[in-house]
Amino acid sequence: MSPHPTRVVVVGADAAGMSAAHQALRTARRTGRDLAITVLDKGSHTSYSACGIPYWMAGEVGSGDDLVARTADEHRAAGIDLRTGVEVVAADVDARTVTTAAGEVLGYDELVVASGAPAVVPDWARRADGSLHDGVGVVKTLDDGAAWRERFAAVGDGAHVVVVGGGYIGVEVAEAALRHGFGVTVITRGRGMSMLEDEMSERVNAALVEAGAELVLGAEVTGLDLDGDTVTGVHWDGGSREADLVVVAVGIRPATQFLEGTGVELTEGGALRPDPHGRVAEHVWAAGDCCEVRRRLDGAWVFRPLGTYATKHGRALGDSLAGGSLSFDGMVDTAITRVSVGEVHLEIARTGLSRADAEAAGHDPVALLTEGTTASGYMPEADPVAIWVLADRTTRRLLGVQVVGGRGAGKRIDTAAAVLWAGGSVDDLAWMDLSYAPPFATAWEVLQVAARRVAERL
Amino acid sequence: MSPHPTRVVVVGADAAGMSAAHQALRTARRTGRDLAITVLDKGSHTSYSACGIPYWMAGEVGSGDDLVARTADEHRAAGIDLRTGVEVVAADVDARTVTTAAGEVLGYDELVVASGAPAVVPDWARRADGSLHDGVGVVKTLDDGAAWRERFAAVGDGAHVVVVGGGYIGVEVAEAALRHGFGVTVITRGRGMSMLEDEMSERVNAALVEAGAELVLGAEVTGLDLDGDTVTGVHWDGGSREADLVVVAVGIRPATQFLEGTGVELTEGGALRPDPHGRVAEHVWAAGDCCEVRRRLDGAWVFRPLGTYATKHGRALGDSLAGGSLSFDGMVDTAITRVSVGEVHLEIARTGLSRADAEAAGHDPVALLTEGTTASGYMPEADPVAIWVLADRTTRRLLGVQVVGGRGAGKRIDTAAAVLWAGGSVDDLAWMDLSYAPPFATAWEVLQVAARRVAERL
Repeated sequence: MSPHPTRVVVVGADAAGMSAAHQALRTARRTGRDLAITVLDKGSHTSYSACGIPYWMAGEVGSGDDLVARTADEHRAAGIDLRTGVEVVAADVDARTVTTAAGEVLGYDELVVASGAPAVVPDWARRADGSLHDGVGVVKTLDDGAAWRERFAAVGDGAHVVVVGGGYIGVEVAEAALRHGFGVTVITRGRGMSMLEDEMSERVNAALVEAGAELVLGAEVTGLDLDGDTVTGVHWDGGSREADLVVVAVGIRPATQFLEGTGVELTEGGALRPDPHGRVAEHVWAAGDCCEVRRRLDGAWVFRPLGTYATKHGRALGDSLAGGSLSFDGMVDTAITRVSVGEVHLEIARTGLSRADAEAAGHDPVALLTEGTTASGYMPEADPVAIWVLADRTTRRLLGVQVVGGRGAGKRIDTAAAVLWAGGSVDDLAWMDLSYAPPFATAWEVLQVAARRVAERL
Repeated sequence: MSPHPTRVVVVGADAAGMSAAHQALRTARRTGRDLAITVLDKGSHTSYSACGIPYWMAGEVGSGDDLVARTADEHRAAGIDLRTGVEVVAADVDARTVTTAAGEVLGYDELVVASGAPAVVPDWARRADGSLHDGVGVVKTLDDGAAWRERFAAVGDGAHVVVVGGGYIGVEVAEAALRHGFGVTVITRGRGMSMLEDEMSERVNAALVEAGAELVLGAEVTGLDLDGDTVTGVHWDGGSREADLVVVAVGIRPATQFLEGTGVELTEGGALRPDPHGRVAEHVWAAGDCCEVRRRLDGAWVFRPLGTYATKHGRALGDSLAGGSLSFDGMVDTAITRVSVGEVHLEIARTGLSRADAEAAGHDPVALLTEGTTASGYMPEADPVAIWVLADRTTRRLLGVQVVGGRGAGKRIDTAAAVLWAGGSVDDLAWMDLSYAPPFATAWEVLQVAARRVAERL
């Protein structure tokens, strides 16, 4: 052990930061490093599942506490000096210090940036002082979730909720509001979920409508109607809707302002681009929502602020910082969600490149949509499923798969993701040995039928 | 086109034979081959799902017709000369003829053996003339299924069903009988399902017991009690049980007697070992339940009479026979089933090698059992799941995975199968990009936690 412990300052106490901190301590025990880890977080909660907030809003999760994987005290008991309510506002990577909003200057030997990405709030949603109008909110922190629970309880039956944004959060919040029986309007710039091809997002749109939502596609919100300071309606280029509540889910932006001007490279969107071990600069590391991630298939850096990348990259970072060799070797752009309201149950998943991504990467892509069932057609479990498969005509490499269908459809994406991870071909997917029994699949698994059909067209 | 069509005789009109016949015709259109395909089947049904019979017995499938993917007339309409009720009893591979039970001799240019594998019937189950005692039956053909439907209806409430055999069929038939509310005893030679490690099969045993079954493990059935010619009980080495019905599910054996002495090589168990294109000898091809299949992981030939191999190998065979190049490049020993009765719902899946297989193949295997949940712990969808992961200490190659758990657990095996197919490592499985959202997984997918834990021990 060295006489002076290595001072590690972690900015952000959520998935990436705490995965890094704990893994660093675990690895340090093996490598004999002496680490003094301080974690600073401007909020009051640690290690909570932001992804779970829509389900808390829906009433499926009983309490916000259920979303907390580990409390601040549990982190402290593990030997981490965790300080909540501390915002870092500046850094000096030459002097190796960070400065807090309270003016405190902390020195570090290694800086871990895991500061996340707060929700983007358009001008129309806020007052002059930057705060949101009453009845308007974002969906990012546990406090946001608690506020939504209160608002949902307060408005009562017959309320109308307008959701601005049709990404994962938008769709999940729409599901939550529909489960409460509220009227729901989803307003989105595009033709539906942008992570899907149009022929797939149309199916999601249809499910939302079947579940009771109104969709306003290709629209840009221009302003709110207010009664005093309380929202009563939403305007867009082409229409308006009365609203009791407005959910703003138009995206998030890396919280990296404190790194501006330090010499640490940021993208135009403010993101960091760490290497597989989490390094971004000398003695500066980063992981999680404040970063872009590398897509293995085309080498592109993309902004995909997902919990699964945060925990994986955070773990690799913590291990590397403490002398280990774990690495986060990028991703293949896998994601999943659902629309589940009453009789409507649609699972939505994607992995790999879109057709546009593939063309941009110089592929000659061939894509086909295949319809089938999640179980043998004669079984009560059989639900319709649509599978879109994209492959390269020349190399036969599998490039992307999207799945939209009933119960059991969504997690099938992992099989396609595994093929993409290995750089496999559409023939691999078509012929590999996947499980079959009537309650679970057709004798030719639908994913394989979809792959085979593409293989036959190459 | 040649002036004389190539005469293809297919023995067996089920998954392998009919996949071969249809694919041969499709490929022949492309390659310009002129094929005259005759299919002979000793039964009266074609292309039915044998795997679906337990679910028909359970009452989940309304009619035996639902299990028929294509009728004889539909095959004929596609240009196949399909003859049912025709049993092939001999072959001469030099003269290129087959002889039917009726004494007819048919010449062929290419012979496709897809004769399947009837159920093994132990001596204790049958009369001197070979027929089964009343109340005793196997589960293989649609006629078997129809007989079981009648028997289940006839015995009424309070009946006791003894299932002899604890493999897939045994477990699925036990589920079917339990769903009818019958008393059920399962008698098996081993400690449970032999395709699972003991620590996994114990969980299946527990679910069967929770669902109301009695298990008799490590027992060999020695005889039946009869009232006249009707079964009233079952004896084994160590006990006996009264029984209204006895299901015999102790295995199946290739129907290849007609090839004995022809020079076509058969294993001791009577199985054929076709190459990836389905070839077994000059002008002789084979696929399906009458064959062993090649396990890619260790190169072993194993008897795994599964519909998914029959359709895949049959398709490759048909394509190759007609001048194409499709191949069935073996399997990784993937399988799935379930026990689902009332509140009990357990999904059971496996892929790859067992620990014993791995040791036999010269690996230095490391295995761990990991428990987790199918969804984020705070979600109502979260069900317990146990995952067993086996890897090689030196190469870090993933060797096998077994999964036993609640809804959504089973099909996770496909992700592991995809890694095995690609020859990937336990690190690949641990770190690849699998889908995450709270209703579907934990932020570290449980399969990945299980793989990571093994990776950390290598």
